[in-house]
Amino acid sequence: MKFQLDNAQEILKRTPAVLNSLLHQLPDEWIFSNEGADSWTPFDVVGHLIHAEETDWIPRVKVIINYGESGVFEPFDRFAMFEKSKGKTLSDLLIMFERLREESLRELDEMNLTPDLFGKQANHPELGKVTLSQLLSTWVVHDLSHVRQIVRVMAKQYKEDVGAWQNYLPILNR
Amino acid sequence: MKFQLDNAQEILKRTPAVLNSLLHQLPDEWIFSNEGADSWTPFDVVGHLIHAEETDWIPRVKVIINYGESGVFEPFDRFAMFEKSKGKTLSDLLIMFERLREESLRELDEMNLTPDLFGKQANHPELGKVTLSQLLSTWVVHDLSHVRQIVRVMAKQYKEDVGAWQNYLPILNR
Repeated sequence: MKFQLDNAQEILKRTPAVLNSLLHQLPDEWIFSNEGADSWTPFDVVGHLIHAEETDWIPRVKVIINYGESGVFEPFDRFAMFEKSKGKTLSDLLIMFERLREESLRELDEMNLTPDLFGKQANHPELGKVTLSQLLSTWVVHDLSHVRQIVRVMAKQYKEDVGAWQNYLPILNR
Repeated sequence: MKFQLDNAQEILKRTPAVLNSLLHQLPDEWIFSNEGADSWTPFDVVGHLIHAEETDWIPRVKVIINYGESGVFEPFDRFAMFEKSKGKTLSDLLIMFERLREESLRELDEMNLTPDLFGKQANHPELGKVTLSQLLSTWVVHDLSHVRQIVRVMAKQYKEDVGAWQNYLPILNR
């Protein structure tokens, strides 16, 4: 399956509802437990998605469209949410993410991106030259990847509780 | 975090909505693509969850409650959905799963299970003696595990499209 803008948007527009259905009003034990050490809780992951929405995706699309090969992305702070989410509830974060994602998708729509632009490049601070379609594909995979992280973190809370079934459930051992 | 029936039910009751928000009316390219060879598509996974709902969870709870240590679970057919889902649409399956899960949770409620029963055992055909709370914990982890599988399968469709970002996205390499 090759990147297509409309198919990518189908995933991007669903993510707020996926997070809501997974997490909204879930007991704190599920929301604030992590995988040990300095790993992330589901609450942290939602904060990370918010920070990405504010600083990463549409801002980088604009760098490519407006500056092309002379454009350089701002580095992305993967840990900014630890400060930014302080004092907020999960409900606050879910509402904020939903609103930000709607804005992002509206901006994306208004750009009327056409396939002839998909190969347009700018510079990633670590990865070098990347294209518009690679950025948009990464946005999709990043969403799915963090949904996966959230369900893995939740599953691991029952690692000991499943007893002998642990061997049938690889999610518990990664 | 230790198994608690009410916290487990919070996850179990959300899964139909999670699957709906992820998959309902998604283009066929997302629904019917797999990870290669004889791996499963998102469509196959929903069919598998339906078969588990019909033959695995509540039926096994009943074996433990009604027969205890003299009870033996029926083996579970992990591939039954390939026949059972034939001729159905994803919409059919999502509706069917939602209805079956509601029934399961109603049955579970009506059993009024109390913590003194959680250690009650029956025999798994391969794993030997397992307890009620291990079975119920496994039900939760099994749900989360298959949500994870679905998002991984979808993410992999863009494996090549993300370009150099592939190195930042472990979901693409598992």
